[in-house]
Amino acid sequence: MARNAFYAQSGGVTAVINVSAQGVIETARRHRDTIGNVYAGRNGIIGALTEDLIDTSQESDGAIAALHHTPSGAFGSCRHKLKSFDKNPAEYERLMEVFQAHDIGYFFYNGGGDSADTCLKVSQLAEQRGLPIQAIHVPKTMDNDLPLTDTCPGFGSVAKYVAVSIREAGFDLASMAKTSTKVFILEVMGRHAGWTAAAGGLAAEQPGDAPQVILFPEIVFDEARFLAAVDASVKQYGSCSIVASEGLHLPSGEFFSEAGTKDAFGHSQLGGLAPLLAQLVSDKLKYKYHYAIADYLMRAARHIASKTDVDQAYAVGKAAVELAVAGKSGVMATIERKSDAPYVWTTGSAPLDKVANVEKKMPRDYITDDGLHITDKCRRYLSPLIQGEDYPPYANGLPQYVVLKNAAVPKKLKTVFELRK
Amino acid sequence: MARNAFYAQSGGVTAVINVSAQGVIETARRHRDTIGNVYAGRNGIIGALTEDLIDTSQESDGAIAALHHTPSGAFGSCRHKLKSFDKNPAEYERLMEVFQAHDIGYFFYNGGGDSADTCLKVSQLAEQRGLPIQAIHVPKTMDNDLPLTDTCPGFGSVAKYVAVSIREAGFDLASMAKTSTKVFILEVMGRHAGWTAAAGGLAAEQPGDAPQVILFPEIVFDEARFLAAVDASVKQYGSCSIVASEGLHLPSGEFFSEAGTKDAFGHSQLGGLAPLLAQLVSDKLKYKYHYAIADYLMRAARHIASKTDVDQAYAVGKAAVELAVAGKSGVMATIERKSDAPYVWTTGSAPLDKVANVEKKMPRDYITDDGLHITDKCRRYLSPLIQGEDYPPYANGLPQYVVLKNAAVPKKLKTVFELRK
Repeated sequence: MARNAFYAQSGGVTAVINVSAQGVIETARRHRDTIGNVYAGRNGIIGALTEDLIDTSQESDGAIAALHHTPSGAFGSCRHKLKSFDKNPAEYERLMEVFQAHDIGYFFYNGGGDSADTCLKVSQLAEQRGLPIQAIHVPKTMDNDLPLTDTCPGFGSVAKYVAVSIREAGFDLASMAKTSTKVFILEVMGRHAGWTAAAGGLAAEQPGDAPQVILFPEIVFDEARFLAAVDASVKQYGSCSIVASEGLHLPSGEFFSEAGTKDAFGHSQLGGLAPLLAQLVSDKLKYKYHYAIADYLMRAARHIASKTDVDQAYAVGKAAVELAVAGKSGVMATIERKSDAPYVWTTGSAPLDKVANVEKKMPRDYITDDGLHITDKCRRYLSPLIQGEDYPPYANGLPQYVVLKNAAVPKKLKTVFELRK
Repeated sequence: MARNAFYAQSGGVTAVINVSAQGVIETARRHRDTIGNVYAGRNGIIGALTEDLIDTSQESDGAIAALHHTPSGAFGSCRHKLKSFDKNPAEYERLMEVFQAHDIGYFFYNGGGDSADTCLKVSQLAEQRGLPIQAIHVPKTMDNDLPLTDTCPGFGSVAKYVAVSIREAGFDLASMAKTSTKVFILEVMGRHAGWTAAAGGLAAEQPGDAPQVILFPEIVFDEARFLAAVDASVKQYGSCSIVASEGLHLPSGEFFSEAGTKDAFGHSQLGGLAPLLAQLVSDKLKYKYHYAIADYLMRAARHIASKTDVDQAYAVGKAAVELAVAGKSGVMATIERKSDAPYVWTTGSAPLDKVANVEKKMPRDYITDDGLHITDKCRRYLSPLIQGEDYPPYANGLPQYVVLKNAAVPKKLKTVFELRK
């Protein structure tokens, strides 16, 4: 007999996490003998804990199909990391209580490393208790730091945004450089790994192309080397475009953006990394600068999403449901690369105990010896991930993004769960 | 007998200024009986002053056609404002000398208010001296502040970028707001007029849509009113997305971004407006925030250019040449609006003495009474300008932008001109 599924979005959203939701829901709808309704957590796992479930069966096929071109998390996401079972068993007990009350036999958790860990715990607990709940992880993170998958859906589109943006800004800069701005800095999100900054490097296909310099979290900031590279680019090519990761570190281990910079009120420097780097360039090299800070724009930019990323986001959602139908639990749907050029990939799966708490770092040989650009090896890995465009529909000059009805499933439990702060 | 034309790009470049160049060059190539070669100024008017001319006749039809989808200034631009003839007659004399040496009978100047003024002076001087030089202005400015034209090519694409970006970031924010970020600020360029910030308002089509708040240079910042509006949006809709113009002023008349904020080294606050606003929201309302600074990304974003803007950029280039062929001088090619919906427009012309030194401001009735959003009247004006998409071609996941050969025209003058600093 068919049992219901629970689906939730976790952590920072992306341009394509809703495509994975579409993949889960559409595939579940094709397996009605196994999977009944798909209930989504309103605001992620919090929706499960508070029994605030969304009945996706009330959404039309058209509305679910429109998730394909809608960025953000259509059911709401949250930053709420479940602690270990030992430290806070109440949350896990509550999940089991809610899942049993709503006859949920499938737990699809769409997120990054933390949610992979939660997903693993749920699968283990269900097994220990003999509860028929299969937990499958659907990978999502713009940070690209999950192991055992070629890439993480969400990353390819961020990568494309950064590469397109620095190419465009680099062209702009080059035309102004004779009498005006000579240095441009694009600050990108990604505190712990340089994947998003590295992606900017794809825009540099010929000598002199922007970006001429990339600053990675993996490479300790070397002021003299940085300034020399900027100066050399300006002298040789007339200008220098820079992609800088917000996670750039000083030799002291501190974030560059937080080191010793307080404003007149004693606040930490508010403006992030880019203005500090820009001021350094201005002070030491006397070049006029501009900078941009991409922030949410980069991860929400469905208008310039990578078609490869969109396809993979759908594929992992679909694969997760198929894994569930095949009786699996405690696994993550993955992308497996078969070849670089042409890029051939399939979906696969990986055991969650090999995924949880493992961070995929940029290999050192993806970064040039001087620490300021990407290698050809990195390029071979990254380039396929930004291939193809997949434009949303437009009306009145604006992309048409769907807002779902998000109707609540009637509560069945009398108990109220207090979220810890 | 055909005489040569000079074309130059002036000031900040845009996503579509090269489309105007394409319009000028392609139209000139269809009037070979009147117009010989089109010489472009390398780095704008500086190229004329230093006799550093680019021979566009050496570019293939295909290369010129590729300007259609290439942002930035393909011949280089500059920030070099010619002073009045009285204050620096040497520059004007030099222009006449270079134009005569290269048999230039047509001066096409592609820029904003300052270049309109230069163009007017050149036409007046030519007339006084009895020199056969016709000067035609081709409007360009993302600031949209030229009078006597419905809009300025370059603006529509910036407008589309801002509206698309704040819609996407607003969707992202709404999905995170339950447990995390509740306020997002997008800082946009535009020091003196609020047109670019106003364009963000187009994304708000339904109550609750992002952006919920817009901050204009035209409206003195009212802290209490701003915070009340942000708080109301968070309480009613769960989040608040804000578009803020870098030109926002305090009651003292100072720029908000420059007022009383020095870092520990005594530098003025480096981070611009957005981080200061964000800190204010955090201090007073205790909401978690994110912010982005668009800077060059917005004016270089050819990947999401407005088709209307692209069409108009071409049309003013074409019209400028046709005005020249018809014997006009001292005029600007313009866009004339015939109706709002459907948007019907044609090209026209305006005398430069009515254009130079006149700034088109946002009418007060384009801004709501509370000063924090746009009115329906503003929407009727702006909406047509962002209609349509005109995507560049892609290869390897990246837009393919042309770099011209930019071969130099052999110098004919022995004299060297020293640019004043």
